[in-house]
Amino acid sequence: MASDTDLRQNEKATALEPASDAVLRFIGTIRTPWTDRDDCPRQGRLDGPECRIVLNPEWHEALTGLDNYETVEVLYWLDQSRRDLVLQSPKSDGRIVGTFALRSPVRPNPIGTSIVKLERIENGTLFVRGLDCLDGTPLVDIKPNRCDFTPKAPPKPGDGQTD
Amino acid sequence: MASDTDLRQNEKATALEPASDAVLRFIGTIRTPWTDRDDCPRQGRLDGPECRIVLNPEWHEALTGLDNYETVEVLYWLDQSRRDLVLQSPKSDGRIVGTFALRSPVRPNPIGTSIVKLERIENGTLFVRGLDCLDGTPLVDIKPNRCDFTPKAPPKPGDGQTD
Repeated sequence: MASDTDLRQNEKATALEPASDAVLRFIGTIRTPWTDRDDCPRQGRLDGPECRIVLNPEWHEALTGLDNYETVEVLYWLDQSRRDLVLQSPKSDGRIVGTFALRSPVRPNPIGTSIVKLERIENGTLFVRGLDCLDGTPLVDIKPNRCDFTPKAPPKPGDGQTD
Repeated sequence: MASDTDLRQNEKATALEPASDAVLRFIGTIRTPWTDRDDCPRQGRLDGPECRIVLNPEWHEALTGLDNYETVEVLYWLDQSRRDLVLQSPKSDGRIVGTFALRSPVRPNPIGTSIVKLERIENGTLFVRGLDCLDGTPLVDIKPNRCDFTPKAPPKPGDGQTD
């Protein structure tokens, strides 16, 4: 889907005020082999090409301890996506699917999430496999994969039985 | 971690300009049993209490087809979190971990992500289990769980062999 205003058959957009609820601070840039949207994979693969996540210098120390994880979750801003589509037609065949039933970049807040394989970290740059975004995509967050992570802080009442 | 400016032993904050790179539009509100941060679980559990994701009316149609999925990914804005910590001490014992090696709500862009079990959808409200956030948390996005999702659009060159 282009970031223009064209609609495919049966697609539906909604009229929206400008976004104003919260503001993101980009923390780095993602470098991938894909410079055109038509070349990007639709979903990343852990055996895909090596990509780089280049973190801004003020956040380098915040990587301390991340090398204990084999896979990490990455959030990024899909800055070329339109944000007003409610119904989308992925196959351009008139059949529609709701935006929240798709992982399309076209969504009200175009944040992509991927689980990537962490190969190594060098000078604030992560070398990873499993991304699917364009070269130059702005980085929003990095977290340990929830499946591998155990909270480090003491338990709280809401935690219930954890073992 | 409070949203104030106190630091625990060995923690480190960074000086930041106001965030200005991209703007989010909240699309609904999450209702949970937890009204105080001390009561929230540190990580949601698929057998945890039922919570509600109440979507704003303009996005109700965008749920079309989501009921085909047993689990969905939810993104939300942790609006009470400070955003400047580089190193954190989860146990307040002087030992520190980098922000990106934690799933703490304290991060440069405080976006929480959870995989939740979708029980049912009624009138634009999702009934789910697996959340860990405060009652009233703003909703940012809903997507099918990547593990269950197969792209609906035609393959592209970057997809490689998919089967």
